Amino acid sequence: MNTVGIMGFGRFGKILAKILEKGFQIRVFDPLDQISFSGVEFVDLDTLLTESVIFVAVPIRAFETVITGIAPKLGKNTTIIDVCSVKIHPVEVMKKHLPESTGIIATHPLFGPDSYTSGGTLKMIMNATRDTHGQFNFWSQYFSGQGIKIITLDPETHDRLAAQTQGVTHFLGRTLKAYGIHKTALDTQGFRDLLDLVDQTCNDTWELYSDLQRYNPYTRAVVQKLGKAVQTMTDKLDANNHK
Amino acid sequence: MNTVGIMGFGRFGKILAKILEKGFQIRVFDPLDQISFSGVEFVDLDTLLTESVIFVAVPIRAFETVITGIAPKLGKNTTIIDVCSVKIHPVEVMKKHLPESTGIIATHPLFGPDSYTSGGTLKMIMNATRDTHGQFNFWSQYFSGQGIKIITLDPETHDRLAAQTQGVTHFLGRTLKAYGIHKTALDTQGFRDLLDLVDQTCNDTWELYSDLQRYNPYTRAVVQKLGKAVQTMTDKLDANNHK
Repeated sequence: MNTVGIMGFGRFGKILAKILEKGFQIRVFDPLDQISFSGVEFVDLDTLLTESVIFVAVPIRAFETVITGIAPKLGKNTTIIDVCSVKIHPVEVMKKHLPESTGIIATHPLFGPDSYTSGGTLKMIMNATRDTHGQFNFWSQYFSGQGIKIITLDPETHDRLAAQTQGVTHFLGRTLKAYGIHKTALDTQGFRDLLDLVDQTCNDTWELYSDLQRYNPYTRAVVQKLGKAVQTMTDKLDANNHK
Repeated sequence: MNTVGIMGFGRFGKILAKILEKGFQIRVFDPLDQISFSGVEFVDLDTLLTESVIFVAVPIRAFETVITGIAPKLGKNTTIIDVCSVKIHPVEVMKKHLPESTGIIATHPLFGPDSYTSGGTLKMIMNATRDTHGQFNFWSQYFSGQGIKIITLDPETHDRLAAQTQGVTHFLGRTLKAYGIHKTALDTQGFRDLLDLVDQTCNDTWELYSDLQRYNPYTRAVVQKLGKAVQTMTDKLDANNHK
């Protein structure tokens, strides 16, 4: 059986292992998170880096440190696949620090620990950033074969669209939680959808959420535009109240 | 067959007629909206006011004018049932202007032209404001028999809870429309829920929406609290971006 490496075994690394165990023996390096996990062998960093395909599933804010740390130790045959929820930043980091001989595939799986088990269609954004070792088609077909819909997007388009969709969704989910939304006897379908939104968006750590905002250059404008829309609607209602 | 009156035949008056045709001959007065409608007989105002039960389904902003206009013309046996989406205001108006002999039942059907046909559980808030002619139990059981879940709430509690649920839902739906939310290749379930929210909330007229805000004394605080939550979250993200 072929082997594949995963670097980082947090919330998303574990989902990745569940997917990859259909077809691969999985070797994981994580200095902290070494739990017993079906189909996974924990290895030291040097052993992991002998794998020809390594998924890097670390927090976005740690990504550059991790990539610069492993870059000098990689063999000539390696392909690195990242799974960050933003794409411009990790692609820049990988292109800058990884040697020419290292293949680069950028991905953003549009699912997490909660949505993975919810039964809807899973989607994954993929980009053949530097497909030195011809791995892109294999992995794109592998994930398709697991029922995941593959959408190819360049990092720039990805971040722009992600700010408009996930940026808005997560910002509103977090805002409604800060507001203190809660169930009442008067709930309508629309209101229950908002309660679900809070559940779906607030299970991720604040670290992940704030990294999505910090490392996606488009989210700031989206948040500002939302704030302006709130102000516009408030003013419009005030004007109406004083008629 | 018993008869029942409806005053006002706009978007909601028509839904009411569809429900009431199961059991009643319906007489409608509306100076503008006299269309051909199954099971409905259009009558003049004086004829309508001879009905012993009259549903008043007029815009909230017209409610006081309508009630003061009909109050002197009502017989001794009449019960007025309002269907306004706010409750403190119409209940005050009816108690103030309708003669002691007139029964008052306040209702808020938690459904409209869109949700009525969507197949979910319909709910209706009811309050036996002044049940002079013992009509409350009959109507509560009648609507229950049509599959509508009846929740009894006093006007004060109703408006407080409605501001927290419908107030938030409609404000966000309208705000997201003003923001310019639209479908992209990157849509997740949470984002599609937001698109649905806009569809569900923006079909009502601006008149109805702004009346809900204007005549519910609790919505202003809810909108202000939402604005503050948006600001808090924006500041928190800004602080994080500048770390």
